[in-house]
Parts: sequence; C-alpha cells; structure tokens
Amino acid sequence: MFQATTQPLALGIDIGGTNTSYGIVDRRGDILHKGRMSTTGHHTVHQYIAALSRELAPVLENVGKENVVGVGVGAPNGNFFTGEIAYAPNLPWEGVIPMVKLLGEALHLKVTLTNDANAAAIGEMAYGAAKGMKDFIVVTLGTGVGSGFVANGEMIYGHDGFAGELGHVISVRDGRKCGCGRYGCLETYTSATGIVRTAEEWLDARNDETLLRQYKGAVTSRQIHEAAEAGDTFAIEIFEFTGKILGQTLADAVAITSPQAIIFFGGLARAGELIIGPVREHMEANLLKIYKNKISLLHSALPDADAAILGASALVW
Amino acid sequence: MFQATTQPLALGIDIGGTNTSYGIVDRRGDILHKGRMSTTGHHTVHQYIAALSRELAPVLENVGKENVVGVGVGAPNGNFFTGEIAYAPNLPWEGVIPMVKLLGEALHLKVTLTNDANAAAIGEMAYGAAKGMKDFIVVTLGTGVGSGFVANGEMIYGHDGFAGELGHVISVRDGRKCGCGRYGCLETYTSATGIVRTAEEWLDARNDETLLRQYKGAVTSRQIHEAAEAGDTFAIEIFEFTGKILGQTLADAVAITSPQAIIFFGGLARAGELIIGPVREHMEANLLKIYKNKISLLHSALPDADAAILGASALVW
Repeated sequence: MFQATTQPLALGIDIGGTNTSYGIVDRRGDILHKGRMSTTGHHTVHQYIAALSRELAPVLENVGKENVVGVGVGAPNGNFFTGEIAYAPNLPWEGVIPMVKLLGEALHLKVTLTNDANAAAIGEMAYGAAKGMKDFIVVTLGTGVGSGFVANGEMIYGHDGFAGELGHVISVRDGRKCGCGRYGCLETYTSATGIVRTAEEWLDARNDETLLRQYKGAVTSRQIHEAAEAGDTFAIEIFEFTGKILGQTLADAVAITSPQAIIFFGGLARAGELIIGPVREHMEANLLKIYKNKISLLHSALPDADAAILGASALVW
Repeated sequence: MFQATTQPLALGIDIGGTNTSYGIVDRRGDILHKGRMSTTGHHTVHQYIAALSRELAPVLENVGKENVVGVGVGAPNGNFFTGEIAYAPNLPWEGVIPMVKLLGEALHLKVTLTNDANAAAIGEMAYGAAKGMKDFIVVTLGTGVGSGFVANGEMIYGHDGFAGELGHVISVRDGRKCGCGRYGCLETYTSATGIVRTAEEWLDARNDETLLRQYKGAVTSRQIHEAAEAGDTFAIEIFEFTGKILGQTLADAVAITSPQAIIFFGGLARAGELIIGPVREHMEANLLKIYKNKISLLHSALPDADAAILGASALVW
C-alpha cells in the first residue's frame, strides 16, 4: 500500500459519528493509503486530536509529508468559513469545536473543513460524476438529507457557510414533524428514516393482516428496498411516494440554480431506478417548461466505501 | 446634460414591452445622459434595431464612443449565455431574437444581455443596496415576480442561463393556475396581479356589501396599497396574506443559498413595511434556526425611474 512519491497529495479525513476515516489521495482521486480509527472513546476533543495525530504521523512520514499539500476534513455541521464544527448532534463533542485550528496546530499542515454533503459535491467535481461541470446539485440521501449546490464552478457556501440545506426545505406545508423543530422538511420524507416513517404510517393506516405479518417488528429502509426489488407493491408504492416528494422539491430547487445535473449519493440512492425513476417523473412533471428534459439525474461516481475520504480530500485542490 | 469625458462609460439599455430606455452611465452609477424611444411600432426587429441605432448615434458621438466600454441590455427572457431573447410574451417580436448579435453589428460595440431581474441584481451590486455583498437575492415584485441570485459575488445564471425563476417556485401545492401552465407558483400570489387575484377571490367569497361598494369595478394593486395605507383592514389582511406566502417561500430559498440580504424591487415593493413586515415575520417563523435573525430585508437603493437602465449598464463592468 505505502508508496514513495513526489506528486502532490491531499490528506482527506471524514469525521463520522462512529469512525474517522482518512486517506492519502492524489490529484486523480487514487487513494494511496487509507485507514480509520474510532471517533468515540476519547475523553475530550483534545485527546481525540492527539490520537488522530499519532495515527497519522507514520502515514504522513511514509508518503513524505512535504508532498502533502493540505488536509481536507468533512464533518457534520462543518463550516468552511469559520473552520468550526458547531453543535453536531451525532458527534461526541458538545458546542463549538475549532477543528481547523486544533488539527492545523497538531499536524502543522493547512486544514480546510466543510460539511459532509459539500465535501461530497466537491468530490464529485474533482473525481466523480460532476467532472467538468460548473452547475450541479449533489443530494445525499442517508439518515438525513444533505445537499451541496455548485454554481459557476464554485461551491455555494452562502454568507455564513450554511448554504445548501435542501433537507430542510419545506416539502409538505404543515407536514411531518422534523428534528429541527419545524414541520414538513424534505428529510422527514426522503431520508432512510423518512422512508421508514412512511412505511410505519401506512401500515398503521391500512391495518392489513398480510402487510403487518410481512413488516412485523422494526421496519428498516433496507427491508423496504429489498421488498421493492422483489416486486412487493407496498414497497414500490413507498418509493413512488418518496420519489414524488423529492421530485417536486427538486423542481423548485432547479428554478433557483438551473443545474446541468443532480447527483444522488448515500444509502437510499443505492435503490437506483426504484427511487430515481419516480424522482425523474415527478420532477419533470413539475418543472417550468424551460427546464424540461435538460437535467441529468446521475448516481454518484465515487466508490461508496471511499466517497467520504475522496470528498474531504478534494477540498485541498 | 451632454458632457465631454474621458472616464470609462457604459451604455445601459432596458427593453420593455412599451418603451426602450437607455442611459450613458459612469462607474459610480451616475447617469450622464438618458432617453427613450418606443419598443413597438416597428415592422420587424431589424427596423427596431435600425431605429435604436439612429437614436443612439448622436448620444455616443457626444460622450465619445471611444469612452464607451460596452453595452448592457436588460430584457424580459434575455439570456446571458446565448445573447438571445426567447419567446418573450410582452415584447412585440415572436420566437428567438439574437439581440446581442443584431445590436453588436449595428453599434460596433460589445453587447451583453440578461433578463431584467438579473440586471436589477447586478445593478444593486454595482451601485445599490448590495454594494460589497457577495451573497444576496433580489426579488422583483412587479406584474410578475422575478429574481436574481448572487453567490460568491457572481450572478447565478445556471447551466443554461435560466436560473433565478423564484416566481415559478411552487408556493402553494395545487394552488392558483399560473400563466406558465402550472399551479401555485409564487407569482400567482405575490405579484401586482397576484394581489389583485387575492382581493377578487376574497370579495367573491365574503360577498360583503360594504366591501363590494368600496372595491367596485376593476380592483388594482394601487387601490389595495392606498386602502391599506389608510388603515383599511381588508387591504391590510391582503398584504398580510401576500407577505406570508412570500416569507414562507423565501425561507426555503434561504436554505439553498444562505444570503446576507434579500432586496425588494418593483411596484409592490413600494408598499414598504406593509409588505416587508409580514414577509419578515413569516420568513423568520419558517427559517431553520441557523438562519434566524441574520438576513437583512432591504428596499432597492436604485432610483425607481432609472433602476432598469442602471441595472443594464452594470452588466458592462
């Protein structure tokens, strides 16, 4: 795995709620070395940073630290402008963490931070499905719904670094209660948890013996996905409904940034045409005429296992 | 009015359905000369271009054509990328007009074209309320609703030049029929025509003798504005409803581009706090927490009479 090299390299770090993954990546998106450690189990963020530094020291030495142009970090609630991770509900640290400062001091390298959805968008632009594109949207369909908007070849961070919260656009006025405290947010319908809520609501409402036997216990998004692939009409209907909500909301987003493509990423996106099919149908049906039949709906071209590392590393270029 | 000068100048042209206004503008936004001619009454677009050239020739000679860096044109449906005006319902020409090519050949100057809402946004950035801002939205509340989105200091034109159609974001699912053929578009509620539709719908529904006497004949947006200023509760309620729809939709737009400010422009914006008050209240109530109490709602700082010329001229810089 380890190679001597003199080409410019980036260190990509993805900080997740459970694990921190990292990789040394070259300009083409080839990963020369990767590894991971636990995000949890450190008493303070300072101990976490110290552990991460110890973990990375031999890696940086092996590839030649002088070849490493910089460090890109993707993290939930990571802010590009402030370099801080603020109030991330799924990370073990409370309050505001000055991650760029702490990590920069520990590694003596230039560190750049953004949130995971923006990192995904930058990764697609650098190595993936958005290569050469200047105007596109990346939508991450995971536990929540994230997004990164790129216009004129640049990430839209907005005035404060918080742009691109498509998951918190109101898709259904007075709809489902969201974790953010409001009602009807896109992510209450089209995330992995949203699709499970749909299944549970419908199971309750229909109270059908056969369905209840089939979906007994805790419903999971994987179970719905597998049932839909096996041709189960209830599960297919759930994907149809989910795609409708997402397609309607994307039609509105298109009217704002008029992208060349929308790229889907994350667990639910793996359902492929089961979800993209209904999204395409309902997005097109809701588009203003000037946008119709122009926008490519694409699957992420970053390998699933390495996408987060690649996205983070792309911040460096 | 006419002055000899050696400073760089821009020629701004605003093509409206009735009149074509033009002005010679310096870098600070001072208009050195302005004038107008009729847009209609020319048999073909070629005759219109010829008439405009004849009109502009002495103007350009007077300020010194060598000082004029370029020509900026604002027109409904004007496309920055193609230089064409395509299917503009309120202009006398049918189909696709290659305006940049025609006007460039006639004037022997570099011509840039965009739609009127984008021109307004660029005008605010160059000389108006958005001076020094890198992330903002301009919303034009006229016969229709237009918008221009700026991110990272650049106009978002999108992949095809058609970005920024906030007026055709669906504000009310399955709501009012829009001229675009779809239902519930923002502009069916928050334009001058939208506010009149609200009044007419409510008058029908309430069937109240006193109200019907007050609003007999064709209701106008000016009449509603004046009644609201005089304290009429029916008219104030209409502004409250209009501001609610606009505020809700702006809250969603903020989640995409996270602007520093939203700048209002056009006839309905002249109602000031009557409309901005409810917009602020309902936008704030619908914002995700991270955006709350951060976004300035501003009135255009371009003088009403000259705003379109200034906006068009700002394309040149």
